Amino acid sequence: MTNYADDSLALHTDLYQINMTKAYWDDDFHNRKAVFEVFFRKLPFGNGYAVFAGLERIIEYVKKFHFSESDIEYLRELGYEEAFLEYLAELRFTGTIRSMQEGEVAFGNVPLVRVEAPLAQAQLLETAILNIVNYQTLIATKANRIKQVVQDEVVMEFGTRRAHELDAAIWGTRAAYIGGFDATSNVRAGKLFGMPVSGTHAHAMVQAYRDEYQAFHKYAESHKDCVFLVDTYDTLKSGVPTAIKVAKELGDKINFKGIRLDSGDMAYQSKIARKMLDDAGFTDTKIIASNDLDEYTILNLKAQGAQIDVWGVGTKLITAYDQPALGAVYKLVSIENESGEMEDTIKISSNAEKVSTPGMKRVYRIVNTVNHKSEGEYIALEHEHPESQERLKMFHPVHTYISKFVTNFEARELHVEVFKDGELVYDTPPLSEMRSFVNENLELLWDEYKRSMNPEEYPVDLSEECWNNKMDLIHRVKAEVKEKQSGNW
Amino acid sequence: MTNYADDSLALHTDLYQINMTKAYWDDDFHNRKAVFEVFFRKLPFGNGYAVFAGLERIIEYVKKFHFSESDIEYLRELGYEEAFLEYLAELRFTGTIRSMQEGEVAFGNVPLVRVEAPLAQAQLLETAILNIVNYQTLIATKANRIKQVVQDEVVMEFGTRRAHELDAAIWGTRAAYIGGFDATSNVRAGKLFGMPVSGTHAHAMVQAYRDEYQAFHKYAESHKDCVFLVDTYDTLKSGVPTAIKVAKELGDKINFKGIRLDSGDMAYQSKIARKMLDDAGFTDTKIIASNDLDEYTILNLKAQGAQIDVWGVGTKLITAYDQPALGAVYKLVSIENESGEMEDTIKISSNAEKVSTPGMKRVYRIVNTVNHKSEGEYIALEHEHPESQERLKMFHPVHTYISKFVTNFEARELHVEVFKDGELVYDTPPLSEMRSFVNENLELLWDEYKRSMNPEEYPVDLSEECWNNKMDLIHRVKAEVKEKQSGNW
Repeated sequence: MTNYADDSLALHTDLYQINMTKAYWDDDFHNRKAVFEVFFRKLPFGNGYAVFAGLERIIEYVKKFHFSESDIEYLRELGYEEAFLEYLAELRFTGTIRSMQEGEVAFGNVPLVRVEAPLAQAQLLETAILNIVNYQTLIATKANRIKQVVQDEVVMEFGTRRAHELDAAIWGTRAAYIGGFDATSNVRAGKLFGMPVSGTHAHAMVQAYRDEYQAFHKYAESHKDCVFLVDTYDTLKSGVPTAIKVAKELGDKINFKGIRLDSGDMAYQSKIARKMLDDAGFTDTKIIASNDLDEYTILNLKAQGAQIDVWGVGTKLITAYDQPALGAVYKLVSIENESGEMEDTIKISSNAEKVSTPGMKRVYRIVNTVNHKSEGEYIALEHEHPESQERLKMFHPVHTYISKFVTNFEARELHVEVFKDGELVYDTPPLSEMRSFVNENLELLWDEYKRSMNPEEYPVDLSEECWNNKMDLIHRVKAEVKEKQSGNW
Repeated sequence: MTNYADDSLALHTDLYQINMTKAYWDDDFHNRKAVFEVFFRKLPFGNGYAVFAGLERIIEYVKKFHFSESDIEYLRELGYEEAFLEYLAELRFTGTIRSMQEGEVAFGNVPLVRVEAPLAQAQLLETAILNIVNYQTLIATKANRIKQVVQDEVVMEFGTRRAHELDAAIWGTRAAYIGGFDATSNVRAGKLFGMPVSGTHAHAMVQAYRDEYQAFHKYAESHKDCVFLVDTYDTLKSGVPTAIKVAKELGDKINFKGIRLDSGDMAYQSKIARKMLDDAGFTDTKIIASNDLDEYTILNLKAQGAQIDVWGVGTKLITAYDQPALGAVYKLVSIENESGEMEDTIKISSNAEKVSTPGMKRVYRIVNTVNHKSEGEYIALEHEHPESQERLKMFHPVHTYISKFVTNFEARELHVEVFKDGELVYDTPPLSEMRSFVNENLELLWDEYKRSMNPEEYPVDLSEECWNNKMDLIHRVKAEVKEKQSGNW
């Protein structure tokens, strides 16, 4: 690895973005105003909703976006011409970005982020934006699924050692915190994000002192609050009795907060350990469990009556083990033509679900003002104003016979302006607000959308105008393909 | 997020490492010499071997390891006392690290990396070392599995947008290159690691010009080498005919390298497209395919006679989709006692496979000097010298009746010295050497260990002395637990 003092992240993009930019620039097409939207098609984990995360990192990326000298030098080595390199060297982001806020609940086919910018700029940002949104949204969603099972108990993120390299560990644990986790073991995440950090000792300490009694004593001499890890040799025959013995000997000198189990049959062990602790008078102690936990094992342990008060979740959360990728994409929906007007664009696919929805759009949540529950998301073209309509027709964009009219509603727009003509105009709220924002948003959903297995499908509808616009474009493109096929070109 | 000018990665560790360090330091125990070993128990993906990667990043981490002012300030806020903070502020790595080289083939229960250092230092490095080794080894292994199926064809890494945040994208694609991939789409990885980069254009360019004919022409005006993406509207009716039309019109002005398919039925489309290209005289063009590929889909496409020459693999590789975590652990195997002698340590588990192997060890590959194939790995205690033995007893460490004597052999030690008393003494070879190192290592393995489904289990044996040492420690610990249980403590 070569270390560059001036390394930037602008090259954190796919080569084709630069090759397209080169072609646009050669054609003087690079500054056409373009609109791209980020969305995923399918919710992860079979969940009924996702939790959007990643905006803060995107803001950092866009703010600092520029090609440094060593970036340019590398591109020169790849063979790009000088005039193009000069253009890149001067490039800064001058566009407008609207986005959901972190902690918003999100659904399939709903624009999460919208980038309006000169075509080349928007193109160069695609890869990094997707890289960030895909991972952070995935983890915030997984964390919230786990939090729904844990409910009022405490759940901590312990996964750094299994995360996909360093960035995933810290941005993943931040996303988990947004999604409802209570603390992290990663100290740097605590420093950077102001999250609570948590941790006591590992098996190595017991091994180092060769003896649990010694190790627990030594730990207690340094730390008032003590949680002892009890499974280094034999949890019930050695670990728990030793923890109790040390706690009795030290009495008020320490706060004996509890024990941690990290292997074996946690249901059985926790029940016996609870009784041992209670019998010894330590009824306020907590039992902390960790060992490949996820929402399924936690639910199962609870069903078995496990006496666990605090859950430590690592691998299964930080890698999103059961579905380690979210498929968010970044699609061009509109572009300026020769006359300076915006024209909508589409991507057709033999798979109907994969056809993109053309046009620059806004996203509204239609909240029923009588019961304060959401009727669904409503995606309209930029110039439409559902908030001022008295009566809204909502219909399924594929199975259009599924429709309803809504009258008593508030149309809440879900995007906020983040960059305006290249200027950052958004203040990132504290993480604690993002956490409560998730819960406020979930309050709007009927329980049927929130259950972890087989949730009902939440309505994501297009306005009639938006739907018609899409159908028109599909037909126009199909007619063009047919014309080509008949050789008339 | 708070941006710190002096942010270091020393806090990229679990809080318990710092809490243990504090307890060791209070007890003046922190400088006891300790030996930790990194190993995983189970090979990923059902593969017969893993490909070790991550050393270069570990070297960077260890070289730069120190707590910066803002790190110390954050720890101060957490409540650590000044004298301890002064100790941390001065801390640098002074130990010795031996490791496999990147590209080495690795198996379950074989030490990959060995850290000998003052206890506190070794403890503080654990989390980052595991974070790095687990991910990079996982991806190098997955990449090599895919390369085994692709064989002599070209395979490229396209996964940045689905990687788990930024670091995973670049270190993952580097690991994929070590494992046998030929190029990456990530430009920054090309810059940092000197890897070949690859990419042409995306659907967005076709959409931007609203027409494939226009878009292909514009691309060709800027780039001599042309690969056209043909599935924006209709692959066989529009994309391929347009690519051919443009290539014919431009003739020698471009190198028409081929087309890329990114959706739909690739087996069918590639066969028809091949015929269309051949019929038009473009027999030298390549067909590039990408769309959620992995070793299974590639094998399947090949079985269907798909006419694909170049494979673009993204999500399934960069997230190790079918098994997104490797479970490498970092275990204390030996520690200095009061008298300055090393004493071996063990971690017992009710699961026999999880009992650690005590003692400071070396790892040898026993290569048969007659057929030049490996007889297995042989793990011996530090002072043993299998390379000078005439006859070696090799036996299965669990099913000990499975044994053999080997006579004509060379015992090749698999670790190299990386840090010696805090000094870096290892030169990282170029990536190209790591790539060929993988193949040299795989040459030593019988095919039975290399097949992708149900491979034979490669022997990983302990020397008799190492095995006896482990059994002695198990019995000693069990006797101590029994003693505790009878109340004699």
